[in-house]
Amino acid sequence: PDGAAAGAARERHRRLIKPPGSLGALEELGARLAAMAGECPPPVPEHPAVVVAAGDHGVLARGVSPWPQEVTAAMVAGFCSGGAAVNAIAEAVGARVSVLDVGVASPLQPHPRLRSAKVRPGTRDISREAAMSREEAARAVISGAGIAGELVESGADLLVTGDMGIGNTTPAAALVAAFTGRPAREVTGRGTGIDDDTFRLKVRVIEQALELHGPETADALGVAAALGGLEHAALAGVILEGAARRVPVILDGIAANAAALVARYLAPECAGYMVAGHLSAEPGAGAALKHLGLEPLLDLGMRLGEGTGGLLAAPLVRAAAAVLARMDTFESAGIAEG
Amino acid sequence: PDGAAAGAARERHRRLIKPPGSLGALEELGARLAAMAGECPPPVPEHPAVVVAAGDHGVLARGVSPWPQEVTAAMVAGFCSGGAAVNAIAEAVGARVSVLDVGVASPLQPHPRLRSAKVRPGTRDISREAAMSREEAARAVISGAGIAGELVESGADLLVTGDMGIGNTTPAAALVAAFTGRPAREVTGRGTGIDDDTFRLKVRVIEQALELHGPETADALGVAAALGGLEHAALAGVILEGAARRVPVILDGIAANAAALVARYLAPECAGYMVAGHLSAEPGAGAALKHLGLEPLLDLGMRLGEGTGGLLAAPLVRAAAAVLARMDTFESAGIAEG
Repeated sequence: PDGAAAGAARERHRRLIKPPGSLGALEELGARLAAMAGECPPPVPEHPAVVVAAGDHGVLARGVSPWPQEVTAAMVAGFCSGGAAVNAIAEAVGARVSVLDVGVASPLQPHPRLRSAKVRPGTRDISREAAMSREEAARAVISGAGIAGELVESGADLLVTGDMGIGNTTPAAALVAAFTGRPAREVTGRGTGIDDDTFRLKVRVIEQALELHGPETADALGVAAALGGLEHAALAGVILEGAARRVPVILDGIAANAAALVARYLAPECAGYMVAGHLSAEPGAGAALKHLGLEPLLDLGMRLGEGTGGLLAAPLVRAAAAVLARMDTFESAGIAEG
Repeated sequence: PDGAAAGAARERHRRLIKPPGSLGALEELGARLAAMAGECPPPVPEHPAVVVAAGDHGVLARGVSPWPQEVTAAMVAGFCSGGAAVNAIAEAVGARVSVLDVGVASPLQPHPRLRSAKVRPGTRDISREAAMSREEAARAVISGAGIAGELVESGADLLVTGDMGIGNTTPAAALVAAFTGRPAREVTGRGTGIDDDTFRLKVRVIEQALELHGPETADALGVAAALGGLEHAALAGVILEGAARRVPVILDGIAANAAALVARYLAPECAGYMVAGHLSAEPGAGAALKHLGLEPLLDLGMRLGEGTGGLLAAPLVRAAAAVLARMDTFESAGIAEG
């Protein structure tokens, strides 16, 4: 990110026809967008695109979720046919939906909206062995980067991370614990909805995984391979590629936040291109965002994933850029300042 | 609002292909939209329109704002030419902008976007006499209702309240104090930015006005006439007409919240059609919303007015309706529930 462009945006905000600071968080968001683009005013994003990365999880065998693994594939089919929450919300905010299979266990029907880049049919159980090899993690990262790059080439100017994977809040919480250093019980949530017994089991499973692998944040790819999911690795790639192309990347919930930590520890500067779309109801989300130094734009108690919360922030990002790009200054409007 | 339609929406949310409750506040918003429309799924709003009601304030003579009165007219010109924050944000969320002059003191150039319905050229000083007569207040309410009705007739399916009026946070805080019963110092804010001395003066002025008029909430029109601004009365009319036509009305900040209290005490049922777009940084805003039983969707520290914060919530309202209207159910998608 370009500090001079951010400074120019802050200075421009003082000259726009409104009291200084009166647009609240939108003003600093605008400055960050200017920094990302390296120019002030920043371009106004007109073509948001969400990448929903999908994968399955060996740790599901431990009973961390009430949903069967087959639901991952069924939901991917839903994203393709257009009947899922991500589709409804994407349409509402004018975004396009792409689905990336990096690790769904069940076979999937081909579909124009679905990119097949299956690295392996689901991860291994992180509480007993590494989720995947380092090479597999790298391949998932590259797949995410690849689809992000193609979306930008074809006109996307705002990326949103989405995820699908039954059981994936378990590896997400493990990644958050590993990168933030917080205990598992503080960053583990109830995912799609589990009872007290399952919650205690989930915390224990994550503690076992952390103990088994002894993650070192200096080796972020190793952490992702040991504890993560294929979709988390892929979303880290989406973030890295967005940053490399100077396109803002809106993070959705806990899966995206965990992926953002992986990306941040692989290449610290990429954090400058992240926008925290919302604060997921999952406790690990807040911990991850705090560690990343990001303030969420929305706090609606959402915990679905798929990119739904991130998409809802897309109009806010567009508005933050638009006020810098389209408003008059006191001078141009001939208004005396108060 | 139609409780059966809200119940149908809540029931439908349990059958959509996602864990129950996972869309957080969007789910209850969807149920409220169903209740407003009287059907489930509710229509998906596609044509939001913001009404920016403008007026001047006799109380400005007391020195409650650093901005000169002429800025109201200059900003109205800005709304017309399209260079203000409301224009940039309206474009970003796909909304149309209409401006309603119910009480600007300075002469205004005609413009296709500007409706002239000047009741009087600014109010009187509320700390010394009634802001306007009851008849004038009623005329402002009717003007607001009139423009809202015309917008709905011409296709608007989601209304947003906006305001402009140098000094108008003083009457807004007075209205909030009168309707909520809270002391002036708790509901008074710094508006567009005032120093400590001006803030103390502003509180004193509001206390004088409350003491002078002894407002009775049973006579809401009388309270609006004694303490309010012409734009607050007009926005009460926008809200009442939106409710009468079963169109959701998104409230912006403190001016809208004060107007919503007037509308609510004129016709209690209209509160069912209000959506709190955001929590303004002005302290009276939270007090008013709490009194109205409304939870704000956004909390971005904004305090500009013009409808800017309300507009940012329009995509959330659209999304809340879209998930009910467009998502598959577990049954239709052939997915087993977890």
